[in-house]
Amino acid sequence: MIVILKENTSAQAMEQVVGNFKSFGFDVHISHGSTHTILGLIGDTGKLDIDQIKMFECVDDVKRIQEPFKNANRKFHPLDTVVKVKDAVIGGGGMTVIAGPCSVESEEQIITVARSVKASGAKLLRGGAFKPRTSPYAFQGLREEGIRLLLEAKKDTGLPIVTEIMDLSQLDLFTDVDVIQVGARNMQNFELLKQLGHTDKPILLKRGLANTYQELLMSAEYIMAFGNENVILCERGIRTFENYTRNTLDISAVPVLKKLSHLPVIVDPSHAVGFAEFVMPLSLAAIAAGADGLIIEVHNNPSCARCDGMQSLTPEAFDKTVKKLNRLKAALTED
Amino acid sequence: MIVILKENTSAQAMEQVVGNFKSFGFDVHISHGSTHTILGLIGDTGKLDIDQIKMFECVDDVKRIQEPFKNANRKFHPLDTVVKVKDAVIGGGGMTVIAGPCSVESEEQIITVARSVKASGAKLLRGGAFKPRTSPYAFQGLREEGIRLLLEAKKDTGLPIVTEIMDLSQLDLFTDVDVIQVGARNMQNFELLKQLGHTDKPILLKRGLANTYQELLMSAEYIMAFGNENVILCERGIRTFENYTRNTLDISAVPVLKKLSHLPVIVDPSHAVGFAEFVMPLSLAAIAAGADGLIIEVHNNPSCARCDGMQSLTPEAFDKTVKKLNRLKAALTED
Amino acid sequence: MIVILKENTSAQAMEQVVGNFKSFGFDVHISHGSTHTILGLIGDTGKLDIDQIKMFECVDDVKRIQEPFKNANRKFHPLDTVVKVKDAVIGGGGMTVIAGPCSVESEEQIITVARSVKASGAKLLRGGAFKPRTSPYAFQGLREEGIRLLLEAKKDTGLPIVTEIMDLSQLDLFTDVDVIQVGARNMQNFELLKQLGHTDKPILLKRGLANTYQELLMSAEYIMAFGNENVILCERGIRTFENYTRNTLDISAVPVLKKLSHLPVIVDPSHAVGFAEFVMPLSLAAIAAGADGLIIEVHNNPSCARCDGMQSLTPEAFDKTVKKLNRLKAALTED
Amino acid sequence: MIVILKENTSAQAMEQVVGNFKSFGFDVHISHGSTHTILGLIGDTGKLDIDQIKMFECVDDVKRIQEPFKNANRKFHPLDTVVKVKDAVIGGGGMTVIAGPCSVESEEQIITVARSVKASGAKLLRGGAFKPRTSPYAFQGLREEGIRLLLEAKKDTGLPIVTEIMDLSQLDLFTDVDVIQVGARNMQNFELLKQLGHTDKPILLKRGLANTYQELLMSAEYIMAFGNENVILCERGIRTFENYTRNTLDISAVPVLKKLSHLPVIVDPSHAVGFAEFVMPLSLAAIAAGADGLIIEVHNNPSCARCDGMQSLTPEAFDKTVKKLNRLKAALTED
Repeated sequence: MIVILKENTSAQAMEQVVGNFKSFGFDVHISHGSTHTILGLIGDTGKLDIDQIKMFECVDDVKRIQEPFKNANRKFHPLDTVVKVKDAVIGGGGMTVIAGPCSVESEEQIITVARSVKASGAKLLRGGAFKPRTSPYAFQGLREEGIRLLLEAKKDTGLPIVTEIMDLSQLDLFTDVDVIQVGARNMQNFELLKQLGHTDKPILLKRGLANTYQELLMSAEYIMAFGNENVILCERGIRTFENYTRNTLDISAVPVLKKLSHLPVIVDPSHAVGFAEFVMPLSLAAIAAGADGLIIEVHNNPSCARCDGMQSLTPEAFDKTVKKLNRLKAALTED
Repeated sequence: MIVILKENTSAQAMEQVVGNFKSFGFDVHISHGSTHTILGLIGDTGKLDIDQIKMFECVDDVKRIQEPFKNANRKFHPLDTVVKVKDAVIGGGGMTVIAGPCSVESEEQIITVARSVKASGAKLLRGGAFKPRTSPYAFQGLREEGIRLLLEAKKDTGLPIVTEIMDLSQLDLFTDVDVIQVGARNMQNFELLKQLGHTDKPILLKRGLANTYQELLMSAEYIMAFGNENVILCERGIRTFENYTRNTLDISAVPVLKKLSHLPVIVDPSHAVGFAEFVMPLSLAAIAAGADGLIIEVHNNPSCARCDGMQSLTPEAFDKTVKKLNRLKAALTED
Repeated sequence: MIVILKENTSAQAMEQVVGNFKSFGFDVHISHGSTHTILGLIGDTGKLDIDQIKMFECVDDVKRIQEPFKNANRKFHPLDTVVKVKDAVIGGGGMTVIAGPCSVESEEQIITVARSVKASGAKLLRGGAFKPRTSPYAFQGLREEGIRLLLEAKKDTGLPIVTEIMDLSQLDLFTDVDVIQVGARNMQNFELLKQLGHTDKPILLKRGLANTYQELLMSAEYIMAFGNENVILCERGIRTFENYTRNTLDISAVPVLKKLSHLPVIVDPSHAVGFAEFVMPLSLAAIAAGADGLIIEVHNNPSCARCDGMQSLTPEAFDKTVKKLNRLKAALTED
Repeated sequence: MIVILKENTSAQAMEQVVGNFKSFGFDVHISHGSTHTILGLIGDTGKLDIDQIKMFECVDDVKRIQEPFKNANRKFHPLDTVVKVKDAVIGGGGMTVIAGPCSVESEEQIITVARSVKASGAKLLRGGAFKPRTSPYAFQGLREEGIRLLLEAKKDTGLPIVTEIMDLSQLDLFTDVDVIQVGARNMQNFELLKQLGHTDKPILLKRGLANTYQELLMSAEYIMAFGNENVILCERGIRTFENYTRNTLDISAVPVLKKLSHLPVIVDPSHAVGFAEFVMPLSLAAIAAGADGLIIEVHNNPSCARCDGMQSLTPEAFDKTVKKLNRLKAALTED
């Protein structure tokens, strides 16, 4: 960590600051420039609070050299983390497709979709039971009943299930859920993250609408710091000035997150773009960019979907998409 | 609500859609344009789910005419809501200043700050007990103990207190808290909002980092729809490409929210800009733009603050700011 | 175009507005809703100025149904435009790679790079002669001499050349240039666009840092409205809150622009991401998403490049990238 | 400037880099950390190209300590620059209001507006002759004739005039114009900026839609580096995800730019917000935040304005706004 002192800092003030850092256990290298004096803190600064250091009267600016995340950091865990969910694996160079409807609506619906996405090659079933909706007047999901129906679909098809938790108080209902999803709006719900860190369930952590790569990794760090290393990162579009699409898929997140972290990275093209017709090109792009998998919305009758129908693929379109993805993946892995 | 049909929609498909809308209880006006046919839905469309309508095969686009919020809408409640908290009032043309440290750190600290901000004219005391921090390794607040200390400061000074809730499970601890703050990261924590709608406490609802005016009002609507009308809206900066400041204060939010809603609107200049030296000009700007109040961070010793010291005013700077605010407010109200 | 009148508009005011629209040559359909009256304007509203209509006293809002661009609109030109540049073609389903250094630096440099990218499969040579630099103290390009050296490289390799114009006054120097690039900062330099509309050169039009799809298409429309139909659209990253990458590649722009317009769409992964190590995954993603080509920075000695060396591929990395792109493209086109 | 070397950089590689920096004329301080070695470059690094340094094989990152602008930097010019335009002054603690229509439309219109804004207290007249419009089909301004009419209004009222240049080729027409405006879209039209640096006219430089404070100051630096020190900075709203307003007024730009630079800073509330009803609160906010002045759109008949009528004040509303601004300014300056 580099600490830049203000111009005209007195020798006495500098000594005091340096003394402080030494008392925290750091070695301090001093370098006098033409206008500023610079201190280099030597030691494990990863857990230092940068804002606190900026508060010293004579400190002008502080620049971090080490990243503030440890558990999620590839530097300390060079090998890819592979998250195992029943027979499925996520991470490590494969391509895992998760699919299913935005919301669970009925037993018939979820089982129909589950069978169909399984036949096309999906390895996990997604489906929303608790639904975060902007309006209190919109359909809020089937809730407990939704989870029950997902478990029926799991029994029927053998597909492990992924579904979203919206509040800690719901955790008991997730006992038989295979992967717990933390939605974009809860990416910095730190109390929830801490508690999920105490479970041993894989957590699918979606990037918030306006959160940086580092903030996403810090949220993963929350889960991991409390003991749960099974975190799957998910890029699902960020909010920008462009409104033609629902969000803006930040495709660069894939190779950057893979570089910074050993955790698997998947992409949700459905929420990112918001229109079924663009889900295939974005799915292909995600895998081409190096994603470990996809989470795609599929509905047996999109025009009657109770939410997000516009972005749901029909089973036929999903099947076609997976076939093309397989060809692309094969071309990329031959060497 | 206006529904635009795709070009070349057959008469039969159109009839079916129209029939659907009629079965929902709407009158439908049909208007044939040169390229598109347009349907006007007549009736209370405020609670209709726009996405669901877009799913009809023959629908090209849907445009809302009415806003999707009712309880928070000035159209239906033309008079300003005034939130009363003990002797303080927020809304209705006055200027209410809330002040205090980012975090409660000790009894001495919070009582010192409380007395000092009261002397300068603050009407409520703020202080964080539960702290949302990006890093799991940063100070997380004194939690239960922090609330206890706030209540001591309240007893000492008579100032009502404002503090942030981070999870539903903490609600029992807020019995004697006067105003419950929902932080920016929880603005769309809908389970929390619903539950707060069942209390009768004033709620200070902060705008999320990347949430629109309408989303903020929809979150207020969540609270109000469940029975609690005491909502205070707070603009605290949005995230943009500009990184010199911590966030970008969206000053236009003040007059726009006051136009759209009858709820009081306050501004948090401290989090918006992130540096103490800019808090005064932004406070003045907020009141000049019509805000009902401010929430300002004040610390008796900013350089030792356990969080956000950089943006905290000293008691002296706060006093000077309030004096200048009073002069400005007086100049604006004389007519 | 739909015009929504304010609540409580008098019959007289409405008649006047309707009369106005009729005098402009539109048919007007009137639809009375429960709270608002809505007018549907029927006729060619593509060239109407939406802001002007909003100015009528009694108009609440105006919503466009038709897009404001004609020449660039796929609705009126369903077939892909294919831009021909000597032996190269851009558009129509192929994959065309443009490559070369950020700046032309010397005859040896540009000829070395040109030969090498040609050998790897590039069909056009790029190279900056006039360089837009944020700082007046940074290298501004070799200017006239840069163009002369590009023409030497063209003579040597036969590759057609692409280079950026920064001001109308430079146009005479572009006589032998094959494709004129308009940079992101000049996307809305309308005087320049108009003048380029009077030439017959292919124009590579880069999307501005914060411009929407529609604004990009309107800028293409400027060129096309004055007679030049040879416009190539280029997505090169937008500015967002994420600063890890230089810009944020908006990969969705590819399928969306291809849907809205018949013009070819290429991607510049080098400027979008800013680091050579991520250029390959983003190039693959761009082609997977349906781009017609790429423009990639290649430098024979990136660490000595006079600008943007960080994002430049070495000739070896470029060669490897093109090989992988070819495999991917083949996999996507087999059916 | 701080240069961070990669982990495991060999002693030999380090020596070579250090030698390089010394050959550029810098002193180099070396500081060995636990994971990284850090070099401090001592000397005038303001004009160094940061990207070039990042290209050295062994360099991990570079961090600037000094700002890259000199002429515009308050550090080197502590006193406020005051720009004099005939009898008006901009900067130095006063409040200067510039007003007039978006576009010059006719002699009668511009003279009527000029007389009226002068009577209300405006010190300069604005009016667009060359209009940057998104659509080639929209009104492009009266151009040469517009400038002639502005000069008539100047003769009639004595108000100096401000109008926008869109291309270098128009410069000859600006001989009698008092202040040349560079619009947001041209903020990084560097060829234009250089040429304006060779004139002695005051330049009103508007911040681009997605440009940082530093980029704005670097564009001012372009003008100043070529000899023209009369630059007025103008905040006019940035582009964000919030679409209710036309742009998002970044009010923090006012105190931040005033801190970083000695140049005067004014605000354009009309373009920032896009609706006349919000111009007064934002004008008050701008002056409260410390702006040196405002540029406000006023039209004698907004509903017939040929562009931007929605955001234009009537002369009556403008008069009322100036009166309130005067009261506010007086309250802020009494001490």
